[in-house]
Amino acid sequence: MATDLYDLTVPVFIRGLRNLSAILEKGAAYAEEKGIDPLTLTQARLTQDMAPLAAQVQYASDSAKGAVIRIGGLDPVPMPDTEQSFADLQERIGKTLAFLESVPRDRIDGREDAQVVLRTPRGDFSFTGRSHVLGFSMPNFHFHVTMAYALLRQAGVPLGKLDYLGGL
Amino acid sequence: MATDLYDLTVPVFIRGLRNLSAILEKGAAYAEEKGIDPLTLTQARLTQDMAPLAAQVQYASDSAKGAVIRIGGLDPVPMPDTEQSFADLQERIGKTLAFLESVPRDRIDGREDAQVVLRTPRGDFSFTGRSHVLGFSMPNFHFHVTMAYALLRQAGVPLGKLDYLGGL
Repeated sequence: MATDLYDLTVPVFIRGLRNLSAILEKGAAYAEEKGIDPLTLTQARLTQDMAPLAAQVQYASDSAKGAVIRIGGLDPVPMPDTEQSFADLQERIGKTLAFLESVPRDRIDGREDAQVVLRTPRGDFSFTGRSHVLGFSMPNFHFHVTMAYALLRQAGVPLGKLDYLGGL
Repeated sequence: MATDLYDLTVPVFIRGLRNLSAILEKGAAYAEEKGIDPLTLTQARLTQDMAPLAAQVQYASDSAKGAVIRIGGLDPVPMPDTEQSFADLQERIGKTLAFLESVPRDRIDGREDAQVVLRTPRGDFSFTGRSHVLGFSMPNFHFHVTMAYALLRQAGVPLGKLDYLGGL
């Protein structure tokens, strides 16, 4: 009855990234319709020293693939963060989805209590598989998808909560 | 090894609400320091037709308590959404935390496959306990905490990702 770690990660990230892809499609369509340079949207920021939309998408991708790689002990899947256009960002999401869909369930399930190390410029942080998902990866992933939504919503793109949730 | 439904809900919401409380404290301190009317922060919006900060906090509270009430078949815990000041919002978070801390684990665990109905002005939506958490409550809760962060961050409050995550 309890929930396997795979079900807490891969399908949640896949769903969130598909929703993000649909949100970005609405952003691109809005730019086209209003004659706005799409790069002004993909480079939009909430404030000067926050990351722009393109980086929020890259961080959402990194958050999803990084969690699964760290928990599963999988090989890194480098993505060089060069995306600028909406088409680039869709391609990034597509590559991330293809990777997530390739991850076998048995590499994730059972890793709840395994040590997971997050390496950052500020040092290494140690988690269990479960605490890494619940205390870091999941809130962090949703943060970046929400920021992407917020940036396009603030720019006037017609979006509602159901775009973020992907329906009920 | 797999994760119980209680652990997917109550402690995740408690942690997120404590982080939100700390973020709001920084917002109140910033208003004080800069001589800004605090209500201009609690009423800040990303755009005209989005909910203000105070409502984002109310929605985060509702998302957490509503999920637990629906999944556990518990009595409603009405909170009338009258909060305006930072102190009001802290009180709302405190009441929500007290409720969450009162929920017995055995009312949540084992409800993964139970039917859960979300009643909305647009109609009723049916989930299982598990799908309600993973596909609705968790992303929705993180959405509203992130929006509260985004509003204060955009208003100039010195916040970083670790305030949102509550440390690593």
